Amino acid sequence: MKKLFTMNELNVTEIEGILHEAEGFANGSSWHPKLQTMVANLFFEPSTRTKSSFEMAERKLGLEVIPFDAGTSSILKGETLYDTVKTLEAIGVNALIIRHEQDHYFDELKEKIRIPIINAGDGCGNHPTQSLLDLLTIKQEFDSFKGLKIAIIGDVRHSRVAKSNAEALTRLGAEVVFSGPPEWFDGEKGLGRYQDIDEAIATSDVVMLLRIQHERHSEKYNHANGDYLERFGLTKKREKNMKQDAIIMHPAPINRGVEIDSDLVECSRSRIFKQMENGVFIRMAVLKNVLEQTEGGMNHENCDQKWSIAR
Amino acid sequence: MKKLFTMNELNVTEIEGILHEAEGFANGSSWHPKLQTMVANLFFEPSTRTKSSFEMAERKLGLEVIPFDAGTSSILKGETLYDTVKTLEAIGVNALIIRHEQDHYFDELKEKIRIPIINAGDGCGNHPTQSLLDLLTIKQEFDSFKGLKIAIIGDVRHSRVAKSNAEALTRLGAEVVFSGPPEWFDGEKGLGRYQDIDEAIATSDVVMLLRIQHERHSEKYNHANGDYLERFGLTKKREKNMKQDAIIMHPAPINRGVEIDSDLVECSRSRIFKQMENGVFIRMAVLKNVLEQTEGGMNHENCDQKWSIAR
Amino acid sequence: MKKLFTMNELNVTEIEGILHEAEGFANGSSWHPKLQTMVANLFFEPSTRTKSSFEMAERKLGLEVIPFDAGTSSILKGETLYDTVKTLEAIGVNALIIRHEQDHYFDELKEKIRIPIINAGDGCGNHPTQSLLDLLTIKQEFDSFKGLKIAIIGDVRHSRVAKSNAEALTRLGAEVVFSGPPEWFDGEKGLGRYQDIDEAIATSDVVMLLRIQHERHSEKYNHANGDYLERFGLTKKREKNMKQDAIIMHPAPINRGVEIDSDLVECSRSRIFKQMENGVFIRMAVLKNVLEQTEGGMNHENCDQKWSIAR
Repeated sequence: MKKLFTMNELNVTEIEGILHEAEGFANGSSWHPKLQTMVANLFFEPSTRTKSSFEMAERKLGLEVIPFDAGTSSILKGETLYDTVKTLEAIGVNALIIRHEQDHYFDELKEKIRIPIINAGDGCGNHPTQSLLDLLTIKQEFDSFKGLKIAIIGDVRHSRVAKSNAEALTRLGAEVVFSGPPEWFDGEKGLGRYQDIDEAIATSDVVMLLRIQHERHSEKYNHANGDYLERFGLTKKREKNMKQDAIIMHPAPINRGVEIDSDLVECSRSRIFKQMENGVFIRMAVLKNVLEQTEGGMNHENCDQKWSIAR
Repeated sequence: MKKLFTMNELNVTEIEGILHEAEGFANGSSWHPKLQTMVANLFFEPSTRTKSSFEMAERKLGLEVIPFDAGTSSILKGETLYDTVKTLEAIGVNALIIRHEQDHYFDELKEKIRIPIINAGDGCGNHPTQSLLDLLTIKQEFDSFKGLKIAIIGDVRHSRVAKSNAEALTRLGAEVVFSGPPEWFDGEKGLGRYQDIDEAIATSDVVMLLRIQHERHSEKYNHANGDYLERFGLTKKREKNMKQDAIIMHPAPINRGVEIDSDLVECSRSRIFKQMENGVFIRMAVLKNVLEQTEGGMNHENCDQKWSIAR
Repeated sequence: MKKLFTMNELNVTEIEGILHEAEGFANGSSWHPKLQTMVANLFFEPSTRTKSSFEMAERKLGLEVIPFDAGTSSILKGETLYDTVKTLEAIGVNALIIRHEQDHYFDELKEKIRIPIINAGDGCGNHPTQSLLDLLTIKQEFDSFKGLKIAIIGDVRHSRVAKSNAEALTRLGAEVVFSGPPEWFDGEKGLGRYQDIDEAIATSDVVMLLRIQHERHSEKYNHANGDYLERFGLTKKREKNMKQDAIIMHPAPINRGVEIDSDLVECSRSRIFKQMENGVFIRMAVLKNVLEQTEGGMNHENCDQKWSIAR
């Protein structure tokens, strides 16, 4: 593949290929591009996990990282995202990782930019490397997706992964149910049915909690009174009813005491920090994939203009 | 050379030497310092192109880049530019690249700082590596500057490159004319005459557009109604009247639809993104030049004080 | 050692060991970890010197630095310091350097985080690598601490190093006196007596000035009228009364003309910029120490959870 914007672009074989490669990296495999390779991470929204995870993956692959800070860039002088990306292509960056607050920001880029772009999150849209790391974490635990029941719980409407995870998990043979505040569930998508919170938690192999995306709620949902945890979160009482080998997942950052009782974040069922570790291996696999497609032949070919010096 | 603050410091032979070296890098030459070499990029104003370009050049030369963020530095605690620079010298940085909003910020540094400094833009003053990349782009196209006519169009008053480009191009044998809003043209400098916009564009080999530096205009010039493009910008109609082999240049970031019709930014005459690519090679050449002068013998010698441990 | 939060953790032998190692680095020794090693510098307060110094030390040791910008991190989404640190541990960072505005921020981390943490300043509390570089600078000058008299002058109350320096210097055999505004001196700590400013300066081997920490004063101390320099600062007149071989130190950033006459900052007695250079060697020594303790065996062991893939 030469880009990764959404999970829909990947068929089941490609997903399994990436998971396999990521497991290889987790078990100590290494890969380095033959030539000095430059990447840049363009994050237009706050991030610790995803950005650090890409930075780590890039260094493990021996890539050079050209720093980019949206807050001190020419975006401040009114430059568009397209011109910024085109600039980085022109100066020789070999691949870009982009997080942007606008849904499908990549639509305006994909026709005209020739270097690979990996989507690290667009608005309330997609976050394919997060989806892939979730899949890897489940696969490590249960080896197969067939017959598993996964409950996706919480802020489905604003989540970048709820819908694409549900879609991918269904394709891979799992059953998906949704729970949480019914008004945040968009049943018409047909990706899975809504189930009562207690039943969903008690009967699933994977309890996948979603972060309440306060920064995306136009009217702030009031959960300060602890009501959310009791009604829709993973309390200690609900955790006791989970299936024997069931695991807990959360993309983080966690609102402790809201989506999950703070004491459960590091309990033995929790794979929350393992998800983070897996993120590095997934990003290594995705970066390897896109860089292998483009290696060689990029010099001076990344612009539509004639290059007298390169002849 | 051990520093580069303004184009005036360079004679014609030195300019040609840098262009030659940059062409070598464009064609695949490489150079690395013998010892581990540390540089820092101090950007006190927003930048995408220039900063990324230096970062790229530095990595291609195998330099180590010590990150510096003006927004989280001790400048916030009231530290002066001089003390900040002296600090970086003391901890062992081997060369500095500085952009600062104050004209001639380097005057207070040049006597007392021993490590090389490359000016990446001072106020409305100078931006020598931008001038050099402009020259390289013209040279690649026409091989020689002699007999060429170059039109520099737009916000001459606030441009960092208009005057120094005019001066250097004249020294190299080209003819320079200026155009754009007459009130932004300072005819007394004697660097070139003012010409009507239509004539300037129709008769020049290089149409060099300048960015309107909104952030430097004390009273904001009103161009929102599209008036500027029609009166002083490069419209499609004016482009049709250009000489057959004439090229379009712009330092960017571009105000699309203001200095230039958006559709022309990537037309076959445009060298706008090629300028950006050339910027990397120019900066490699300049960095090589200043680092070669200082290599070896820097350890412990960068302060006026006696160093008992180094004896 | 596997961490460094405060000077109190180090006994005299350990302090001398670090100083010895740092002198080795100053004289050209090198050390590199056997495996690719990742560190991150988490600075939640402005810094030029300490941050750049760690960045320099890390590159000299061949470490990879994962960039972290508090201003664009998930801290903005409400993530706690603990969860941020745990995240960086989970993705494979091998050591953390942290500066945070909260006194003893590390208390909540030290039990549960397994990777080494080096404190780069906590509130008005501690700054052990600054203390160590002060000690190194004194040792280089006088070879031994025994019998030396050190005057610590100024904003003792808000200083991160005044108390720990006094404590360490006393342990190492020096005599410490304090001076400056009496209301900023907390005599009850028993670390040294208060002495009149003129007498303290005239009779000490080391005049260690402290920065007025404006940003930590709840009510801003008014020194704009130059009154502070005359009453409690190092004026040219007081400098003339210093002992023949006495030296001047200041942790910087300097408020020029406040704690010290601006002309004295780079006088022959001043070791202010030498302190900065020493900071790099001290940080190399401390990093080497903590990384040697943890090398090998960190993979997949940094979380409480079972890791199916690592078996």
